[in-house]
Amino acid sequence: MLTFIGLGLFDERDISLKGFEAVQSADLVYLEFYTSYLMGTTIEKMEAFYNRPILRLMREDVEQNPDWLENAKTQNIVFLTGGDTMASTTHVDLRIRAEDMGIETRLIHGASITSAVFGLSGLQNYRFGKSVSIPFPYVSSRKNRVVTETPYDTIKFNQESGLHTLVFLDIDRERGYMTVSEALALLLEIEEKRQEGVMKDRIAVGIARAGSDDVRVIADFADQVNAFDLGGPLHILIIPGRLHFIEAEALVKLAGAPACLLQGFSDGL
Amino acid sequence: MLTFIGLGLFDERDISLKGFEAVQSADLVYLEFYTSYLMGTTIEKMEAFYNRPILRLMREDVEQNPDWLENAKTQNIVFLTGGDTMASTTHVDLRIRAEDMGIETRLIHGASITSAVFGLSGLQNYRFGKSVSIPFPYVSSRKNRVVTETPYDTIKFNQESGLHTLVFLDIDRERGYMTVSEALALLLEIEEKRQEGVMKDRIAVGIARAGSDDVRVIADFADQVNAFDLGGPLHILIIPGRLHFIEAEALVKLAGAPACLLQGFSDGL
Repeated sequence: MLTFIGLGLFDERDISLKGFEAVQSADLVYLEFYTSYLMGTTIEKMEAFYNRPILRLMREDVEQNPDWLENAKTQNIVFLTGGDTMASTTHVDLRIRAEDMGIETRLIHGASITSAVFGLSGLQNYRFGKSVSIPFPYVSSRKNRVVTETPYDTIKFNQESGLHTLVFLDIDRERGYMTVSEALALLLEIEEKRQEGVMKDRIAVGIARAGSDDVRVIADFADQVNAFDLGGPLHILIIPGRLHFIEAEALVKLAGAPACLLQGFSDGL
Repeated sequence: MLTFIGLGLFDERDISLKGFEAVQSADLVYLEFYTSYLMGTTIEKMEAFYNRPILRLMREDVEQNPDWLENAKTQNIVFLTGGDTMASTTHVDLRIRAEDMGIETRLIHGASITSAVFGLSGLQNYRFGKSVSIPFPYVSSRKNRVVTETPYDTIKFNQESGLHTLVFLDIDRERGYMTVSEALALLLEIEEKRQEGVMKDRIAVGIARAGSDDVRVIADFADQVNAFDLGGPLHILIIPGRLHFIEAEALVKLAGAPACLLQGFSDGL
């Protein structure tokens, strides 16, 4: 049996009771921290808290040579990841491999940033369109700095239907965790070039350290890049589309957005 | 202090360790089960398991007269809901009221069906568009049966960009929990009328009892309504857009979709 367990958002205590019990009764506990990562803990802390040794898997152990899957034929194996379980294609692929080997699989879910953002921002789930990631700029073979425009296009596409866009920020082995300020600066750079008004007079919502006691949510105009001083990682960004009154009120009262956001709504709404 | 806690997907053991500790150390424990509901437990079981009395709030206690909020000025109050916390507008409104009253609020997240569906189906998060709900048909003042076409329009809109649609199914006090079969029959009824091909030769993915040991995921052609015999509630539906190979493989191998889904992909992909 192979049990995929989502650890939740921030530290070793964000796992569900069900997940915690499954870890404690497992024969072997594996973990991968390269597709996502819990900022509020370490593997050592997790081992102490769960009272189990944890075997860390590298990308190649998961994607190229998952020999360790063999153990699941005869033992109870758990596979831990940050957030909800099976968030990345890699995990789906692993589950298919296991099923092909005749191994029974099951999932124990954890809290995910993709739903936490709704509660933290007050923006409603069914008003989000497609989500997107912002990668760090790279230098092309011709030595040009390349800023990917896909995020700008996705935000524009969603805006045309009044929808919000959830924007995941890059994590790079060398450049670290992209901040909301860096992400906004990249989007404004594309706006400067394309001038399609996607980022003009727009509100942005920055969220840092979701799931921790030190969570921060800031809403302000997107060009006030310096206002989004959110502190340490992880950060995530939302570019709202059309706002309902209650959403605007949440951004003003819970995230410090400028009160002018509340104008333009009829009284009594 | 008012702590909003998401209970997760199915029963009393889907709460996080952090949430469990907060419940146990709270002065008062409130719960509302009208915006969502845990199928795998009862308030009595939760009270026994958490070893705390639970005060159940009705819609009017949450939306009209939340007098109980006063208690949070001097005591530690927790407010429990199914799924992740703050999923509905009602909860956002409650949080704004509390902040207006000078009450400190915080969130402890739980697993949400909105992210669980990614892992259960193998369909990737960033390939979903706007989500939608299917309500039960109603009888108009002119005695006509009215089937809302919004879900059909949303699926069509997402399909035009190749995106998947997550479809929430109605819960009605009298008519109970809508099943995937009922939802598909309604969508096919709209297809019959509009003939825009939105549901023609389309795959659907039905999920039942997410988070339980008895979870089921079935993928088949949408017009095979009887194939989606998923058993008891809660059900949720996905109408996939364009599939990546790994998504198609997951539907075939993990959800029993017809193998013809794998045709049309180049070898080696």
